[in-house]
Amino acid sequence: MYAASFNIYKKSAAAQFSLLPPRRDENGRVSKNGAVLVEMAPSIGEKTYDWKNKKLTFAFGVNDLVQFFDDPSSGKWGSFLHDNDGQIKKLTITPGEGKYQGTYMMGISSGDARVSVSLSAGEFHTMGRLFNFALPKILGWDGV
Amino acid sequence: MYAASFNIYKKSAAAQFSLLPPRRDENGRVSKNGAVLVEMAPSIGEKTYDWKNKKLTFAFGVNDLVQFFDDPSSGKWGSFLHDNDGQIKKLTITPGEGKYQGTYMMGISSGDARVSVSLSAGEFHTMGRLFNFALPKILGWDGV
Amino acid sequence: MYAASFNIYKKSAAAQFSLLPPRRDENGRVSKNGAVLVEMAPSIGEKTYDWKNKKLTFAFGVNDLVQFFDDPSSGKWGSFLHDNDGQIKKLTITPGEGKYQGTYMMGISSGDARVSVSLSAGEFHTMGRLFNFALPKILGWDGV
Amino acid sequence: MYAASFNIYKKSAAAQFSLLPPRRDENGRVSKNGAVLVEMAPSIGEKTYDWKNKKLTFAFGVNDLVQFFDDPSSGKWGSFLHDNDGQIKKLTITPGEGKYQGTYMMGISSGDARVSVSLSAGEFHTMGRLFNFALPKILGWDGV
Repeated sequence: MYAASFNIYKKSAAAQFSLLPPRRDENGRVSKNGAVLVEMAPSIGEKTYDWKNKKLTFAFGVNDLVQFFDDPSSGKWGSFLHDNDGQIKKLTITPGEGKYQGTYMMGISSGDARVSVSLSAGEFHTMGRLFNFALPKILGWDGV
Repeated sequence: MYAASFNIYKKSAAAQFSLLPPRRDENGRVSKNGAVLVEMAPSIGEKTYDWKNKKLTFAFGVNDLVQFFDDPSSGKWGSFLHDNDGQIKKLTITPGEGKYQGTYMMGISSGDARVSVSLSAGEFHTMGRLFNFALPKILGWDGV
Repeated sequence: MYAASFNIYKKSAAAQFSLLPPRRDENGRVSKNGAVLVEMAPSIGEKTYDWKNKKLTFAFGVNDLVQFFDDPSSGKWGSFLHDNDGQIKKLTITPGEGKYQGTYMMGISSGDARVSVSLSAGEFHTMGRLFNFALPKILGWDGV
Repeated sequence: MYAASFNIYKKSAAAQFSLLPPRRDENGRVSKNGAVLVEMAPSIGEKTYDWKNKKLTFAFGVNDLVQFFDDPSSGKWGSFLHDNDGQIKKLTITPGEGKYQGTYMMGISSGDARVSVSLSAGEFHTMGRLFNFALPKILGWDGV
């Protein structure tokens, strides 16, 4: 069954979160953990985003969740790195300051490409609740 | 399978919360997100409510949940708007003050019609826990 | 499928928590909400309890959960009443004071009969987590 | 279906957490509660651990979860004992101090054997979230 994505549509860019289930071999064993797939694209007009040419993706996996569940007030929180054979991808979540206290900027960068979007406190907490739900699903613990 | 609603029955009015599952197309893809359906009606006697003539409903969807999960102490929290082709429906949740600290008033208004009901702290927290449970269900993430 | 109960065995008494699923009619509609069944009995020897003659039970339902999820520090928290045609049953959860801070006493009384047991902070929190899990199950929301 | 384990791989040792479902008899009744199986082994080279000769295991069951959900700031928190016919196994989780505040050391000891591994705050919280998910599963409450 195919689930819907959690969508954040803003003026300058959009982000979509989908749940990727773990892959299983013919015996039902998890052969690859699942992830929360984050897809982002910049806008190219009102409520239109360039998913075709400028999409950046980041498969937020178990190790990323571990870091996400760390204390957000710790200095090093909010930087998630994937190294695919030397190609570095980075997802960053940066807490706002001053009048933006409680909000966040989320960005994905890969080489020279970069997309970022602002998150309200509600969007950030919704993301965290979905991440919490996803954690055991990604490991296949719900099917035990 | 049909679930039961979470019911709040007070002297002046009643509220019922039901979980609407996402709609799926013939391939199992989510074609429309689910929601928590909030139904309210004023009382017309002891433990009797005018569900037939005065019912107001509000399908509390993903965007509403995002706002609900925002910080309740922020000034703008608690106002949820649906615009159906110019017809405005509004659900409001207002924190009590003074000796009503910890309790809430919840109301739905549509045009001139309005129903509202008081929520104890326990009822408000129960609603929040059901909303948290509903979030991934509404997107179909539990079926992945 | 039959689940196991969460058991608290102490010197003077024991408590067992089981999940009662909602009852459904032939169309799959919930015709009666489920509950968390609390069963308690006093001890009649080492690790032996008088389940046969002195068992007291309390079906902790949705309304009880609503009260449980209220603020425990509010003065009126912790008293749960069931009135079955004039026969009053009462479950009480009383926070400890002084050196018992963080622990609780839980008791069921029905007429002259009464059983009570002490809860460590961990047992109380475990009970709360199971109550949180049970809430949507009791309403059948997990089957939607 | 077989789930994946949650893995913590460090320089000196590794820990793996798996969900053991409850055992059921031919009528579907839970005959033995499940557990979260913790397996640990010391390293014998870069990213290689001696699972064959030096593995220590600890089946973290309902009683252990109850203690885990107790207040971590209480003095006696973090020591979990299993006595199998006089053979004592011990799992300990020790909060770090000073500059290690927020992190933990986790160890399993059995007789003279002992393995221990450090947990970041994120790893500790992830473990706690998995324990919370596991609690009703271990009792079979999800199948009710």
